[in-house]
Amino acid sequence: MEKKTVLIVGLGLIGGSLAMALTRSGKYIVVGADCCLQTVEEALDAGAIARPADPNSWGEADIVMLCVAPLTAVELLKQHIGELRANTVVTDVCGVKGAIVADCTAICRPHGVHFVGAHPMAGREKNGFEHADGDLFRQASYILTPDADTPETAVDAVRDLAMAVGCARVTVTTPENHDRMIAYTSQIPHVLAGSYVSSPCCAEHVGYAAGSYRDVSRVATIDETLWSELFLLNREALGAELDELIGHLQAYRDALTVADRDRLQELIRFGRECKQKFG
Amino acid sequence: MEKKTVLIVGLGLIGGSLAMALTRSGKYIVVGADCCLQTVEEALDAGAIARPADPNSWGEADIVMLCVAPLTAVELLKQHIGELRANTVVTDVCGVKGAIVADCTAICRPHGVHFVGAHPMAGREKNGFEHADGDLFRQASYILTPDADTPETAVDAVRDLAMAVGCARVTVTTPENHDRMIAYTSQIPHVLAGSYVSSPCCAEHVGYAAGSYRDVSRVATIDETLWSELFLLNREALGAELDELIGHLQAYRDALTVADRDRLQELIRFGRECKQKFG
Repeated sequence: MEKKTVLIVGLGLIGGSLAMALTRSGKYIVVGADCCLQTVEEALDAGAIARPADPNSWGEADIVMLCVAPLTAVELLKQHIGELRANTVVTDVCGVKGAIVADCTAICRPHGVHFVGAHPMAGREKNGFEHADGDLFRQASYILTPDADTPETAVDAVRDLAMAVGCARVTVTTPENHDRMIAYTSQIPHVLAGSYVSSPCCAEHVGYAAGSYRDVSRVATIDETLWSELFLLNREALGAELDELIGHLQAYRDALTVADRDRLQELIRFGRECKQKFG
Repeated sequence: MEKKTVLIVGLGLIGGSLAMALTRSGKYIVVGADCCLQTVEEALDAGAIARPADPNSWGEADIVMLCVAPLTAVELLKQHIGELRANTVVTDVCGVKGAIVADCTAICRPHGVHFVGAHPMAGREKNGFEHADGDLFRQASYILTPDADTPETAVDAVRDLAMAVGCARVTVTTPENHDRMIAYTSQIPHVLAGSYVSSPCCAEHVGYAAGSYRDVSRVATIDETLWSELFLLNREALGAELDELIGHLQAYRDALTVADRDRLQELIRFGRECKQKFG
């Protein structure tokens, strides 16, 4: 089978890790673009990409993976859509979908190009190509948000990418459901980590901390430019989930205030049963 | 050097793990007591203890480790104090100190017995002897809360226990400071885990979750009888720290509500810098 050519735009942690994993799979020719030329050099030296992008690369690609911040992805797609051949598959890796999938689809469709919104569920608390890792997606979930008009062949092309990088499962859903679930599974833990380490006690934790401190604080080291964009592009779902969390915390607070042991036990038991039931 | 005899009262996750580690160190003869006779049998079969406790064990012990819930520890100490020899060292492993150290000290001192409040900073999201592990305390912190009248020899005896089970450091502080810090490093993550998994989204997380979900939810499976006691015995410090956390979360919520990107970036940056500075 002939190898497909994949243009990866943005060789940071996610794009760089995808490049490494796809190249290693032997099934794709990976071409790499990044606004930082030194990063492209590093990716080439590391064997993550077959070659750097040149002015023909968008037109030669079978698949384009946009591995940049959401609004940048939309902008780049607008700029380059005229270069793409019909039936090229364009996909992204953004942590929000509602805010960009409709725009990207509207940009692509008149050109016969197929956009498949996607979000591989893996990450690190470090950014940049220097932390890229070809094993990052091993056993991860890869979420796809096609619509009713997305051709099955395009969805399959992205599904194949997910399998080639070692994902354990592909989840197909709507952009709205993606955003609601990601507010809970990913954005809330990041807001939490930042909130948690903002306590004055954080400065004194050494000698008093164990696994729980480490786990809750781990993802506090995020880039504020990217994540403020991600949070704002998912304002409603994240806001609702934050209200949900604050409500539960306040319930513990209220039970403590009045020293209501039965209520505390009830709250703890409910959480324990959720975790035991849902894993 | 003659081996010291340690009576461990309560062979659950913590007491059982201490028994295993102390026995393995070769420096102690470990005698085990538990209200469940089958647990004592299991500990004996596992080689965690040299022998089960008998009516003479409290009187024969050089060191008594109370590995039960806080109020139970105080009760047991009251019942058995008359059996202890002068200069016996009594220590505990409870997650709160202010509520019991003064009481235990007052029980011990008239008998010439030395109480050293202690809290080894390690745990698991599972309870009971069947999850005990002689490596549980490896590289952990062991917190001690002696007062000005505690003899240095008694403090050293517990310090030796901490080193024998593989701890990396001993932290000496007051009961009040212990409780303030533990509210932050341990109790808050447990309240958080329970609150987090109480969201309706929890039931649907499979296919949308990665490391962050796992980390935040991990310790939700706690025993409500023990932890409601621990939370209530540390009401003030935990309540204050919960207010602190809710305040930070609310700040994110408010910035989202008015779509204030500068403020969001400021909040994220502050958290990132705390984590980078304090680890």
